[in-house]
Amino acid sequence: MSDKAIGVGLIGCGTVGSGVVKLLVEEADVYAQRLGRPIVIRKVLVREQDKDYKTEQVPKGALVHDPDAFFADDGIDVVIELAGGKGAALTFVKRALEAGKHVVTANKALLAAHGPELFPLARKHGVALAFEASCGGGIPFITALQHNLTANRNVAMYGILNGTCNYILTQMIDNGAPYEAALAEAQAAGFAEADPTLDVSGGDSAHKLAVLASLAFGVSLTDDEVPCEGIDTLDLTDVRFGTELGYTAKLLAIAERFNGKLALGVAPCFLHDDDPLARIGGSFNAISLFGHAVGHTLYSGRGAGMMPTASAVVGDLINIACGAYTAAFANLRIWPDQHEPADRMDPNDITTRFYLRVNVVDVPGVMGRLTTILGEHDISISAVMQHEPQEDDEVHGGGDIVPVVITTHDAKAGALRAAVRKIAALDSTRGEPVVIRIVDLPEG
Amino acid sequence: MSDKAIGVGLIGCGTVGSGVVKLLVEEADVYAQRLGRPIVIRKVLVREQDKDYKTEQVPKGALVHDPDAFFADDGIDVVIELAGGKGAALTFVKRALEAGKHVVTANKALLAAHGPELFPLARKHGVALAFEASCGGGIPFITALQHNLTANRNVAMYGILNGTCNYILTQMIDNGAPYEAALAEAQAAGFAEADPTLDVSGGDSAHKLAVLASLAFGVSLTDDEVPCEGIDTLDLTDVRFGTELGYTAKLLAIAERFNGKLALGVAPCFLHDDDPLARIGGSFNAISLFGHAVGHTLYSGRGAGMMPTASAVVGDLINIACGAYTAAFANLRIWPDQHEPADRMDPNDITTRFYLRVNVVDVPGVMGRLTTILGEHDISISAVMQHEPQEDDEVHGGGDIVPVVITTHDAKAGALRAAVRKIAALDSTRGEPVVIRIVDLPEG
Repeated sequence: MSDKAIGVGLIGCGTVGSGVVKLLVEEADVYAQRLGRPIVIRKVLVREQDKDYKTEQVPKGALVHDPDAFFADDGIDVVIELAGGKGAALTFVKRALEAGKHVVTANKALLAAHGPELFPLARKHGVALAFEASCGGGIPFITALQHNLTANRNVAMYGILNGTCNYILTQMIDNGAPYEAALAEAQAAGFAEADPTLDVSGGDSAHKLAVLASLAFGVSLTDDEVPCEGIDTLDLTDVRFGTELGYTAKLLAIAERFNGKLALGVAPCFLHDDDPLARIGGSFNAISLFGHAVGHTLYSGRGAGMMPTASAVVGDLINIACGAYTAAFANLRIWPDQHEPADRMDPNDITTRFYLRVNVVDVPGVMGRLTTILGEHDISISAVMQHEPQEDDEVHGGGDIVPVVITTHDAKAGALRAAVRKIAALDSTRGEPVVIRIVDLPEG
Repeated sequence: MSDKAIGVGLIGCGTVGSGVVKLLVEEADVYAQRLGRPIVIRKVLVREQDKDYKTEQVPKGALVHDPDAFFADDGIDVVIELAGGKGAALTFVKRALEAGKHVVTANKALLAAHGPELFPLARKHGVALAFEASCGGGIPFITALQHNLTANRNVAMYGILNGTCNYILTQMIDNGAPYEAALAEAQAAGFAEADPTLDVSGGDSAHKLAVLASLAFGVSLTDDEVPCEGIDTLDLTDVRFGTELGYTAKLLAIAERFNGKLALGVAPCFLHDDDPLARIGGSFNAISLFGHAVGHTLYSGRGAGMMPTASAVVGDLINIACGAYTAAFANLRIWPDQHEPADRMDPNDITTRFYLRVNVVDVPGVMGRLTTILGEHDISISAVMQHEPQEDDEVHGGGDIVPVVITTHDAKAGALRAAVRKIAALDSTRGEPVVIRIVDLPEG
């Protein structure tokens, strides 16, 4: 690129968009010094009917409501898409790429669903598609994957990729709040949406896992391939038993390679309390990545919010403007569209440890029946915990029903599921047994 | 660059060098696929008299002992300098840059001392100087600073940058081992050199801090500007009192900006136990960075060792080969030679909390004298701990001498030092009072 100004067109000006405008306006001199040329906001496209845009700092005359007026501005070199969703955003991103404009986006849903179509479109038109802000907010993890970690074949990735869920779980653990109360608290604190479904169901984490795993493991992948459980069915009882056993509950997005096959999933899991990943609380996100050469590296930071996300967006913009990102995008063959579909592992073949809670009628021989069934399925027991039955004890069941908690050694997930089906069918079992994966992070 | 092979010349083939060779040989196909062209080892320069080089995987005919033979190879595009030290390494790096070859180095001592001279030399000859492996081993933190974090003005950085010290401190904390025993254990486990001086004195951390702070804070800086205390004088007594108070001892390399001025230092510090940085144990390294936009981000991983360091070296090589690093190096103005010297803060003006241990003769009125002196210096006390005197208690002093432990609220370092001088001069004081900074990481 030349020494002339970099022209930016911004689509969407809500929370993150106004953060981007704030940075570009307030740090204009700093960025011009770092880049050797100024970054100029040419146009900001917002839907007139929304009215919730925050445009106090938008340069005079830049605000437009008509996409045609936006795309008619030849002074735009880079389009920043912060509209969100997969409808208009898809149209805008395609239109920008086809017009030969680089695109920076924070839109994980769009990338998870349409990445395989958008990346080649960018390449066809000789421009770059950058997306650091789409996963993990301000954490420069995609940057790490694209740049210095390229010497590695990655073997496993464990991500806390949704700040809403991590905030809720931290409330449940630290304050003993049941899920519904913790969710209400997260909503009051601004860490959860009025409709939190996409977050608490694990769907948002699955989008991000699809984007990150594609890069980290060199596979073509969309989010509909990610098995997903949320925290919305997690019982405080199990969070507390976890604490008692030395485990911290986290919603983990996991990608692991076993014998060349990739296992993917999003689910509430237990991590050892002393694992650094377990210590990442509140609304923070974090990722533990295991590379074959580098071993274990951990990244954490704010996974959402106005300025952290704007930091990632503007970071991408600067990297495009200086030619670094565009060179990596053009010359490396690590991008989601350049890979074969993942050779997926049968989820039943995953070998891991498990936490199992079975509510049982407290009669003689119950424990023997449970352990016999597990033994018959080749599942060996690490620890068993059964407290005295206590009246009026909400957590432990109360009355004649007692929870039996069992942790296993490494076992095949399929064998565990089969055993749990048998346990569920026992006369002495009440309700559905609860199964939570215990994640022992690899040596690294 | 073209589609032809990238030629590599390697200087030094010890532990890290043989890791680099291992990656380039074993992953040749993977890298060729990612880059679209092969990486080829042209020459490996080792001193004949050393004999400790590990060259089993070095391609036939590539091993040379004569620097002239090495530099005569026109097929070398990138020189990887792993000789270490500031003597021959300086000559080699200058010679490579002057010959128009990109340089990748893991040599923090060289960069900390000669960076301001080497960076412009690289630029003058149109090549890049890459150094991810110089700090934090395999952690891609320099990559983060160079790329996605460029949207930030950074405000503070706290690094555990020496794995040897972190391993020793972890032994002291977890096993109650005195410093000398923990050092011997680290040496036996291969985490400390036979002569550990550079590590345990804090000197190695100071080198790395100079390199990182220059990038993170946009200042020109050499390591002789970093005040430095090591762990070699740290008493197990204080580590244990720290544990009792809820703090973890870490050797921290700190750079903080206060009112536009930069405060730098390496010293043993206390972190709150629940701080994620405090949880990074063993030989791992970690950095907490606070950017004005991104807030708090944390990075951790193996700070040394054959394959983690090789991962960073080869990552740099791939980034040079694809043109991403070279574009950032040529077009961004963020490099150590492009900044003014740091406007440094008087260390006495730093405001922070302190831990203070004074061994006193256990007579009436002692505590009053200590607290009066602190009060006269505007230092307000957060907590005081004085145990019953115990005979034969090595840790707590024994006999009539008792340790008084005081933690302060935020206080000026200069005022604290003045108060400690007065306290040291009291008749009731025995030995030198111990002062350790308590680091409360910023909100972020």
